[in-house]
Amino acid sequence: MTATKTITHTRLRELVLANHILALEGVLDAYGHVSVRNPNDPTSFLMSRSRSPEIVSEDDILVHDFSGNVDGIAAKELYRERFIHAAIFAARPAVQAVIHSHADDVLPFSISTLPFQAVFHGASQVGAAPAPVWDIRHDFGDTNLLVENMAQGESLSRAMDDRTIVLMRGHGFAAAGATLINLLKMVTAIPRNARVILDVLHAGETIVPLSAGEVAIRDTTDMTTPAAQRQWEFWCRRLGVTFEPGGYL
Amino acid sequence: MTATKTITHTRLRELVLANHILALEGVLDAYGHVSVRNPNDPTSFLMSRSRSPEIVSEDDILVHDFSGNVDGIAAKELYRERFIHAAIFAARPAVQAVIHSHADDVLPFSISTLPFQAVFHGASQVGAAPAPVWDIRHDFGDTNLLVENMAQGESLSRAMDDRTIVLMRGHGFAAAGATLINLLKMVTAIPRNARVILDVLHAGETIVPLSAGEVAIRDTTDMTTPAAQRQWEFWCRRLGVTFEPGGYL
Amino acid sequence: MTATKTITHTRLRELVLANHILALEGVLDAYGHVSVRNPNDPTSFLMSRSRSPEIVSEDDILVHDFSGNVDGIAAKELYRERFIHAAIFAARPAVQAVIHSHADDVLPFSISTLPFQAVFHGASQVGAAPAPVWDIRHDFGDTNLLVENMAQGESLSRAMDDRTIVLMRGHGFAAAGATLINLLKMVTAIPRNARVILDVLHAGETIVPLSAGEVAIRDTTDMTTPAAQRQWEFWCRRLGVTFEPGGYL
Amino acid sequence: MTATKTITHTRLRELVLANHILALEGVLDAYGHVSVRNPNDPTSFLMSRSRSPEIVSEDDILVHDFSGNVDGIAAKELYRERFIHAAIFAARPAVQAVIHSHADDVLPFSISTLPFQAVFHGASQVGAAPAPVWDIRHDFGDTNLLVENMAQGESLSRAMDDRTIVLMRGHGFAAAGATLINLLKMVTAIPRNARVILDVLHAGETIVPLSAGEVAIRDTTDMTTPAAQRQWEFWCRRLGVTFEPGGYL
Repeated sequence: MTATKTITHTRLRELVLANHILALEGVLDAYGHVSVRNPNDPTSFLMSRSRSPEIVSEDDILVHDFSGNVDGIAAKELYRERFIHAAIFAARPAVQAVIHSHADDVLPFSISTLPFQAVFHGASQVGAAPAPVWDIRHDFGDTNLLVENMAQGESLSRAMDDRTIVLMRGHGFAAAGATLINLLKMVTAIPRNARVILDVLHAGETIVPLSAGEVAIRDTTDMTTPAAQRQWEFWCRRLGVTFEPGGYL
Repeated sequence: MTATKTITHTRLRELVLANHILALEGVLDAYGHVSVRNPNDPTSFLMSRSRSPEIVSEDDILVHDFSGNVDGIAAKELYRERFIHAAIFAARPAVQAVIHSHADDVLPFSISTLPFQAVFHGASQVGAAPAPVWDIRHDFGDTNLLVENMAQGESLSRAMDDRTIVLMRGHGFAAAGATLINLLKMVTAIPRNARVILDVLHAGETIVPLSAGEVAIRDTTDMTTPAAQRQWEFWCRRLGVTFEPGGYL
Repeated sequence: MTATKTITHTRLRELVLANHILALEGVLDAYGHVSVRNPNDPTSFLMSRSRSPEIVSEDDILVHDFSGNVDGIAAKELYRERFIHAAIFAARPAVQAVIHSHADDVLPFSISTLPFQAVFHGASQVGAAPAPVWDIRHDFGDTNLLVENMAQGESLSRAMDDRTIVLMRGHGFAAAGATLINLLKMVTAIPRNARVILDVLHAGETIVPLSAGEVAIRDTTDMTTPAAQRQWEFWCRRLGVTFEPGGYL
Repeated sequence: MTATKTITHTRLRELVLANHILALEGVLDAYGHVSVRNPNDPTSFLMSRSRSPEIVSEDDILVHDFSGNVDGIAAKELYRERFIHAAIFAARPAVQAVIHSHADDVLPFSISTLPFQAVFHGASQVGAAPAPVWDIRHDFGDTNLLVENMAQGESLSRAMDDRTIVLMRGHGFAAAGATLINLLKMVTAIPRNARVILDVLHAGETIVPLSAGEVAIRDTTDMTTPAAQRQWEFWCRRLGVTFEPGGYL
């Protein structure tokens, strides 16, 4: 029995749904993971035990502390790279959701000087300036490229600084959101943003990114309106689960 | 109860089917929208309330006026960017159908000087000369890039001029058709047209677009023949709905 | 009642299956068509009436003469571009099967000087030298780009000469096979062959095509062996139809 | 009755599952094949008779000797290119699993000087230095490009040397793994690794491959842990077969 038993069903359901959405959209496959800060204790976070995101159920969600440990559960049951989440949540109190992904379309930007920055409105959270690239080799020399301890997680978090995304050389990326839905919107747009940039650069052309001013504009729509809930309804439909109008962040 | 109750079932069914086709073909996803001029009152148009196109049903179709309002319905129930449709229908009496899409393959042309023009017969409606690109920043400075009022819709419509398509920088495109089926044929060909251009330009080669003369030739086929209805039958089959021979525009 | 009633069930079933395979593999969509020479009368050919290939059934197959006519059937019931098939069958007695396709990946080669030639063993029938490109504008000026009469079909066939494939500028391609299975094998490899060439040329590199000697080598495998029938079994499985071992050309 | 009757059900089930996974992931289609060294007799190997991988069942698995023969079975029942497997198993005692694939994304590297080397952690087994390319024409002149006898298989194996992968000009690749799961992990990452390299090179940029030190680091995770079994669970789910926790290599 874990501490998640005291967390409202709505919050758990959203995290499970987020796992399934990210698999559906191809942002996660057998690997990668998504987490949210614990609404009952902001010094911990919620994430599945080591299962593929599209298979995760509410029973898999565990409360992780900021060292990446789960009370009463052996390390081998957990995601090996949970330290990414622990380090980012610890360093940045305003972050409510974190993801680690190996989405293919982002990888080219991690092994070259190609700039990854927002070029269409759906990806505005990526930011106007090119995202930082963290190379694990810089601090840790030759490794298997995985983030397997807190020192590596903290190094990554420092490279990320106050950005929403940090690329990981030859590996993938980590991203953080002010809310879970913000994170979902950003990361499902990230592969598309990558392909648009590549399609321009492959032609030897120059991209026009969003401006700093455009990126700074925050959407003030009431998130309970039909217009805002529409994205959830779309995902529920594609996943074959019942949509509960107004029942999502 | 809305004014759509007086509109023939065939017209409503076609608009709903168009929504589903555009989702099936990947032209629309959770966002974007398609509309037709109101056959009962050409100073208004029919479009869904704010729902994802693949989920739209006949009950969702509402009569919008040329200010983007719907009698008796709160704005929050409507598409935020309905002003795109209102402005184009108001400015161009010959237009019977309008779409706004964020299809990925067109985006590269909106953030660069890559020319978007018809290169194969299926996309001839796109036109022989490169499509105009509208940059919301030119008239409105930094925004969230969405078309959220009539002034922005009218600015877009002016940039579109008498063309069938206008690209929207960092956002997507709007397109207009002389009939709904014309619009469907054009916009399902648009992503393909984009990829063909990109595949040539990525190789550092020059494209041979359709000529102005080729684009000007209008198809005079009887639209009730099997050859013309075949496209509808194909889409009905893929959507799993019953095809009614001869029952489509 | 048509003359196809005297044609063996096996031959009709193969042509219907070929239609479905070509839709499954994305070589044909709502448009495009495939035909075989009439085994009972080599001065005619079998092809569906105007239906989308994935929907074609045995009842749709009609005997077409070399003017593109079908006895007792109005022209509007037939494919508009049936003249492609009529002209190629008339000009080339050794051809047993013909296809017309608009597959996207081949289109870039039709609107540029990019060379389309065989670069992997599965596409060897394409030939070692670049395929000819036919531009309808050369003989017929501005048109809707469709092949709508025998003069246009014959012009295309002359440009094709003795090759297995001819590209059609801004439109697609026509291809011919010594047998139906040969044609299927070639045309399902054609989009793949296109992408491989593009992936090399996009990097500014030079392709190594198959040699003339490699292309000239004919496969002498017994087509009734399991190794040869395996492709049919694969396609039947994917189409959800029962495979009849040894029952295919 | 074949010698496979004495092989444990688990080993046979894994090989069948590997066939289905490789079809699911698009590494194999109607053609290509995967094999494992015979656990009961390391001088032979297990592979299906000539069937498409997604259709292979346990009854299809046959014991092949290092000349590519199967006791009591006619050659026409077997994969034509089984000599690839025979030659590699014979030359390299440490290899436990072999695959031959025509995956499209790798083909560009086989017909050009584009370098195929590991650029992300999931493909580390590919190696830090560019993979060798074997051109059958060098030793055998013009052929149909297939590996149809032991001399050709041995030539390929020599070109492969001690690498995990060898590209085959205009044809595909062969790869070898220290275990079946190692091979599966590598080859499902290979098309992704190819696309990442191409996306960088298409932009005229230079790739940063994994270092020799990174490639040399071996994963020492206990393969029976949930973290390691997770990949199998993912594949079982996608294939619709029951996952047996801990029941896979």
